[in-house]
Amino acid sequence: MGENGNLNPVTLEGPVCPLPLQPTEYVVLGHGSGGKLSRDLVTKLFLPPFDNPILRAGDDAGIVGIAGSRLAISTDSHVVTPLFFPGGDIGRLAVCGTVNDLAMMGATPRYLTVGFILEEGLEMRVLERVVASMRAAAQEAVVQIVAGDTKVVQKGKADGLYINTAGVGSVADGVEIAGANARPGDVVILSGAMGDHGIAVLSARGELDFQAQVTSDIAPLNHLVGEMLTAGADIHVLRDPTRGGVATALNEIAQQSNAGIILDEAHLPVRPAVAAACEMLGFDPLYVANEGKLLAVVAPGDAERVLRVMRASLYGQGAAIIGHVVTGPRGRVLMRTAIGSTRVVDVLAGELLPRIC
Amino acid sequence: MGENGNLNPVTLEGPVCPLPLQPTEYVVLGHGSGGKLSRDLVTKLFLPPFDNPILRAGDDAGIVGIAGSRLAISTDSHVVTPLFFPGGDIGRLAVCGTVNDLAMMGATPRYLTVGFILEEGLEMRVLERVVASMRAAAQEAVVQIVAGDTKVVQKGKADGLYINTAGVGSVADGVEIAGANARPGDVVILSGAMGDHGIAVLSARGELDFQAQVTSDIAPLNHLVGEMLTAGADIHVLRDPTRGGVATALNEIAQQSNAGIILDEAHLPVRPAVAAACEMLGFDPLYVANEGKLLAVVAPGDAERVLRVMRASLYGQGAAIIGHVVTGPRGRVLMRTAIGSTRVVDVLAGELLPRIC
Repeated sequence: MGENGNLNPVTLEGPVCPLPLQPTEYVVLGHGSGGKLSRDLVTKLFLPPFDNPILRAGDDAGIVGIAGSRLAISTDSHVVTPLFFPGGDIGRLAVCGTVNDLAMMGATPRYLTVGFILEEGLEMRVLERVVASMRAAAQEAVVQIVAGDTKVVQKGKADGLYINTAGVGSVADGVEIAGANARPGDVVILSGAMGDHGIAVLSARGELDFQAQVTSDIAPLNHLVGEMLTAGADIHVLRDPTRGGVATALNEIAQQSNAGIILDEAHLPVRPAVAAACEMLGFDPLYVANEGKLLAVVAPGDAERVLRVMRASLYGQGAAIIGHVVTGPRGRVLMRTAIGSTRVVDVLAGELLPRIC
Repeated sequence: MGENGNLNPVTLEGPVCPLPLQPTEYVVLGHGSGGKLSRDLVTKLFLPPFDNPILRAGDDAGIVGIAGSRLAISTDSHVVTPLFFPGGDIGRLAVCGTVNDLAMMGATPRYLTVGFILEEGLEMRVLERVVASMRAAAQEAVVQIVAGDTKVVQKGKADGLYINTAGVGSVADGVEIAGANARPGDVVILSGAMGDHGIAVLSARGELDFQAQVTSDIAPLNHLVGEMLTAGADIHVLRDPTRGGVATALNEIAQQSNAGIILDEAHLPVRPAVAAACEMLGFDPLYVANEGKLLAVVAPGDAERVLRVMRASLYGQGAAIIGHVVTGPRGRVLMRTAIGSTRVVDVLAGELLPRIC
């Protein structure tokens, strides 16, 4: 399209210098991937106008002071398709997503809000199932839903339903967990196998030729975090590797902490069914979404103790040390591969699986 | 459709007893109206599973205790169409909506979260305009945006963009404002003219034959509330009459307080252009949405003082006493009409204007 918006073929006569369409002129699916395009959107479009030190920290939740206490505040919208899949549904996802964002700051999640956007014609019994699932997840996480809102849009203007949750948690004195706190020498622990959520949702879409026996890992991680904190270990960073997977979450930590991270490929936990599905699809499990896993960056002397506590907890049974923090290359994640070479593990560039959460 | 889902015409042979389609089997636009169907959805579908005393109070925000302080927490999703209209846009609406919900509990709004659901193909400059508008509204309200989330759905799965905001505010000691606190004898004050927002959005849709010179009233009302509280008046209830209008908000208060409310039609403030548009459309301005107005129920001895304070404030200049609280009929709103009769003012039954906020 020329500068004047006409659709005639570009001629090379006259002062016409057509530029390729900038991918940043329109929203594309990759802006919701959790990877590079998402980060670009945040840093270029959202951060400049809304800038403040809390938002700038770039963590899973904002830490604020109010009336003398420290609170963590977070939000997530959920647009997963299909609404129900092995191991979970949009309701469980909506509760656990925000609970986990709060827990990743070392906060005790307390209160949630829920905003529904419903499509006209949605079956009421679908909504009832989703709400029942939210109730069960909230009970498991021990959080209360204290405010809600419902909007309805015309048929064709949503995809069944979308759910936003926001949450507030309290942060105990002395807890200082943030993406910027990783230090060279720290040990990187992953709480269990990678990629279960992404592959489970994909299999529910019928996009796999085989029946992957994979169940989503969606879970509230606040009790696991509580046990890790109670153990008195020196935990520097916690992060749940959701959209963009473990690779993207570790890149964020490396950049926030201005340090390097080295992974050991041989120690990365992946279930055989997930590995097989990824191989078939050309996916790397490092980039596939998780919804019930956490990364912990802990002081080296405390790593074994944290690992023991995690393995004794329901949602940390598969915990493993997967790497460690180094001085550099700063802001980068490297991986020692099984065959002994080292390669760069970058953030997710495009969009692996749209509408995964 | 028969019980087995076939589309054959119903025959009256055999044990077939077709029942009319229950309006509650599917979500309809009226479930988002803020009126009777919205209330049914909340009381029948959301409240039973999520039940707790905070939610049961049915106010604009939940009041919670955390680490020894009282907080108000609220959320609103916004799906208004079109995205831009005279006097505002979805961004200003999203910030003011949640700020006002907090202010209606007498809270000082402090922190907001923002969740965007973007449709693939949305022009980035549209998003930039919306974000700039959110920034301006947040600056005016003096609140910080401390957490955000962005999801992208495929073309055709949203309508440009939807925005959820959630907010946290602090409630000072001694402030006890709630929908249940209206007492017989109390005076009902409305902060200005009714229906501006609804008619402004409608006119932007091109659905009016004439050009209504009406601008939306969207505004953050927290400074007005702050001034009313500082005046030391005995304020029992505050509520912003958004979806469902003044009529629906007053019915909620009457029911929560188990009291009656009598309005004086002659004192209801409506701009001539809004009155004309409503007359043409067959709307009653009492049911048309406002986004920068509040209802205050105050002790009779303090009414004149509150009115003076409100009229001196930017967003309360048109404040007027519109009625008072009586013992009964409990849970009902009545109106003395201009011709001297009395009629019942019920909640909105269906859907007046879909996607107004």
